Amino acid sequence: MVHNETSTGVTSDIAAVRRAVDAARHPALLMVDTISGLASADYRHDEWGVDVTVGGSQKGLMLPPGLGFNALSPKALAASRAAKLPRSYWGWDEIVAMNRNGYWPYTPNTNLLYGLAEAIEMIEAEGLENVFARHQRLASACRAAVRAWGLETQCVEEACHSPVLTGVMMPAGVDADRVRRIAYEHFDLSLGAGLGKVKGLMFRIGHLGECNDLALVAALGGCEMSLQLAGVPLAGSGVAAALAELRSTARPAARRPE
Amino acid sequence: MVHNETSTGVTSDIAAVRRAVDAARHPALLMVDTISGLASADYRHDEWGVDVTVGGSQKGLMLPPGLGFNALSPKALAASRAAKLPRSYWGWDEIVAMNRNGYWPYTPNTNLLYGLAEAIEMIEAEGLENVFARHQRLASACRAAVRAWGLETQCVEEACHSPVLTGVMMPAGVDADRVRRIAYEHFDLSLGAGLGKVKGLMFRIGHLGECNDLALVAALGGCEMSLQLAGVPLAGSGVAAALAELRSTARPAARRPE
Amino acid sequence: MVHNETSTGVTSDIAAVRRAVDAARHPALLMVDTISGLASADYRHDEWGVDVTVGGSQKGLMLPPGLGFNALSPKALAASRAAKLPRSYWGWDEIVAMNRNGYWPYTPNTNLLYGLAEAIEMIEAEGLENVFARHQRLASACRAAVRAWGLETQCVEEACHSPVLTGVMMPAGVDADRVRRIAYEHFDLSLGAGLGKVKGLMFRIGHLGECNDLALVAALGGCEMSLQLAGVPLAGSGVAAALAELRSTARPAARRPE
Amino acid sequence: MVHNETSTGVTSDIAAVRRAVDAARHPALLMVDTISGLASADYRHDEWGVDVTVGGSQKGLMLPPGLGFNALSPKALAASRAAKLPRSYWGWDEIVAMNRNGYWPYTPNTNLLYGLAEAIEMIEAEGLENVFARHQRLASACRAAVRAWGLETQCVEEACHSPVLTGVMMPAGVDADRVRRIAYEHFDLSLGAGLGKVKGLMFRIGHLGECNDLALVAALGGCEMSLQLAGVPLAGSGVAAALAELRSTARPAARRPE
Repeated sequence: MVHNETSTGVTSDIAAVRRAVDAARHPALLMVDTISGLASADYRHDEWGVDVTVGGSQKGLMLPPGLGFNALSPKALAASRAAKLPRSYWGWDEIVAMNRNGYWPYTPNTNLLYGLAEAIEMIEAEGLENVFARHQRLASACRAAVRAWGLETQCVEEACHSPVLTGVMMPAGVDADRVRRIAYEHFDLSLGAGLGKVKGLMFRIGHLGECNDLALVAALGGCEMSLQLAGVPLAGSGVAAALAELRSTARPAARRPE
Repeated sequence: MVHNETSTGVTSDIAAVRRAVDAARHPALLMVDTISGLASADYRHDEWGVDVTVGGSQKGLMLPPGLGFNALSPKALAASRAAKLPRSYWGWDEIVAMNRNGYWPYTPNTNLLYGLAEAIEMIEAEGLENVFARHQRLASACRAAVRAWGLETQCVEEACHSPVLTGVMMPAGVDADRVRRIAYEHFDLSLGAGLGKVKGLMFRIGHLGECNDLALVAALGGCEMSLQLAGVPLAGSGVAAALAELRSTARPAARRPE
Repeated sequence: MVHNETSTGVTSDIAAVRRAVDAARHPALLMVDTISGLASADYRHDEWGVDVTVGGSQKGLMLPPGLGFNALSPKALAASRAAKLPRSYWGWDEIVAMNRNGYWPYTPNTNLLYGLAEAIEMIEAEGLENVFARHQRLASACRAAVRAWGLETQCVEEACHSPVLTGVMMPAGVDADRVRRIAYEHFDLSLGAGLGKVKGLMFRIGHLGECNDLALVAALGGCEMSLQLAGVPLAGSGVAAALAELRSTARPAARRPE
Repeated sequence: MVHNETSTGVTSDIAAVRRAVDAARHPALLMVDTISGLASADYRHDEWGVDVTVGGSQKGLMLPPGLGFNALSPKALAASRAAKLPRSYWGWDEIVAMNRNGYWPYTPNTNLLYGLAEAIEMIEAEGLENVFARHQRLASACRAAVRAWGLETQCVEEACHSPVLTGVMMPAGVDADRVRRIAYEHFDLSLGAGLGKVKGLMFRIGHLGECNDLALVAALGGCEMSLQLAGVPLAGSGVAAALAELRSTARPAARRPE
């Protein structure tokens, strides 16, 4: 399963799937990709009964790509030990053994480990719960903007909205990639493209990692102007709607790190 | 004279002062501080007949403070040679002589010279005329926002508005520094304070150097929310006014540098 | 095969193996790991008839780990297309197709691609042939030091000495890891450990990437003092031997890059 | 007075001069330039009775140039207040008043202040006394090298040798700048030139700031090879002499900072 679907802006109910698997008494391992959710959206490997979790450095951890993380249940480790498929780089046992002493059996990405230490320090200084709440608040303001424009988010199920990105559907006949090109050329704003089946039908606004109120306002301002330059009729100002929501929920930062 | 007054957002007509000095046949040297104007607002040392121009690295050249620049007229150099006041560090002759071969008589700030080379490359890639026009356009959109709020800019003379910052006067009874504190604590937005006589009566929005449309929209969004949180009654949305103006004048970037 | 064995300081004759495979009319693909040799030691994928070459960013390309490179022969691509083993990330066809337009089907390590462009610029400014010759010259001076100490290099075959690292065998009874610890604690010098069967029996001196004469002299100075502090009897000064060789072959740099 | 003369490698006995001034009952203020000595060589503004001390960021504090420091005695402050010479930027009173609250009356070099905080952290992690001892030890090894070459240091008075740089006199007929050019072109080693009266007669080896044993060995190796390439007859190996001294006084580092 994918915890947070970065191509659509949809989150999945991991715990519910675990319950369904258990109810069916199915022996399958539950593997979850939380690459774009980790450190931005609540995630609980142990509590939710996940067997294999895969994370990465390049999203909520605010680093370049280059580090991958695995969290493993005892059941997953046992399955790995019993498996007959030949492995080399992906064998967990050697890694787990060396990790105990802080080592890694191959060339470690030392540079990114320094960055990771800094990222974790930033997250802990803000507080993990506060980081999650910040992303939920920004996502809510972003969706308020989309509603004010009279457009639809790709994810229509309220309970599944991603806190880290929002997919914006175009009205019929509007080429989303043309809007994206206008945004890039006129405002130096890079919006995510629709992928696969929704290519050209939607664009994506990211609000993850070290994103704050004004970064979101800037992105929404660029989207609003680009939609208008593309001739998309808007019901109202999404920026105004986002400002209203952000203002009504603004709180002083606990304390900016030195 | 000061070319661009960074504490108020007012520019001065250097050429007019030169004409006045000449008309009075006064022998005074004309010295101009263009620290906050250089590379953001049009400036012409030779054409305007300036004798001594002083610039710096930390504004339109987008660098940390640490470099100062002098441009000198033949008259200024002659006056310096004839002057009897003892000088050491500030003596131009030794500097001019060593500059011919690319040297500097004291410890040069080599690090910033590398940064300066990069800054000049960025400016030349965009084109100096385009850089000036970009600042004028951003300043105009910023003033549109202030007007929409129903507030006044500190500079009231249309011909003297600075292209690099805008001073925003508060209505009677509003402490500008409280608005600034709200902006800083709620939105991580650092606004310039009123200095001297206007302390607490105004704040300043900078839009110089590597500033673009969306950076200005973000700053104006932060100002608008902070003014509202401070209880300042606004006539309308400055962000909406700025978006309307920016959108109507937006052009594709010639080509982003690689 | 491994082009340059980073754990021992031994290079392999790739072309000879190719000839042997061909002479035996064996259909096997020839796959070469040139991770630690690429851009420091001469390597010829096409000319030597290699089918699959694997390189990395973290050695001769002077970058952090994070990029891997594959060079593929038509035979390897055909074998890949005919293969029945399910693949996902490692499937070449999708990568080759997207690479034609400068894309990559997954999250690209953009940061390191900027670094790679810079690294290639540095290498081309020096000249690839000059880079290879520099490494050969440094390796030769390093071996001269080892000989002067009266010690042996791990690689005993003259034709196979690596140009990027030198393995130094310890006399019987000397713990190489103790020498390494002394070097680290006294001189902030990090020497490579012996791995596997030679753990504790040797240490490794790296001289790859952006290494020059004086960096090697510093490393040899640290080794020499550490060996002496560890009580290893030395036949003579390796530093003196290296200085003599480096001096006799020193040439002015063509021109340092600006 | 100059605490550490960076153009010659000579230190001055500040306390002795203070005693002489006092013995003569002369009212002069004692002003000391410790730009190249600060944080590398012992210095005591209060204890030695200095009135005005001037320091800088670009030597022992390991930063780019860009920050200057003044330490002032009550007598200097009183003299400043009584002085009639018009001042602006150099007036201490305004600076002292604003410094009390952590402010600075002009544009502060914020970037370098962050660097300064880091530099001070590095110095305190090592211990200021250890920093001074490290420089004395490196300077002593450097002089041992010069003696082994059969050359003379510019400073001949044992008590006045600088701990941060060593001036090396050339034998009659040898152009020091030619040696320097050989070092630069062959070994990428930048040696300080003789200035003023000793131009061409000597070169300078710096060993200040974040310098350690192996950095000094590298520099001495480059000097030794360059002297030989320039045809200077040497009595022996300076590198060997320095290695012998460094090895005999090497101690494990207390603890490397994380």
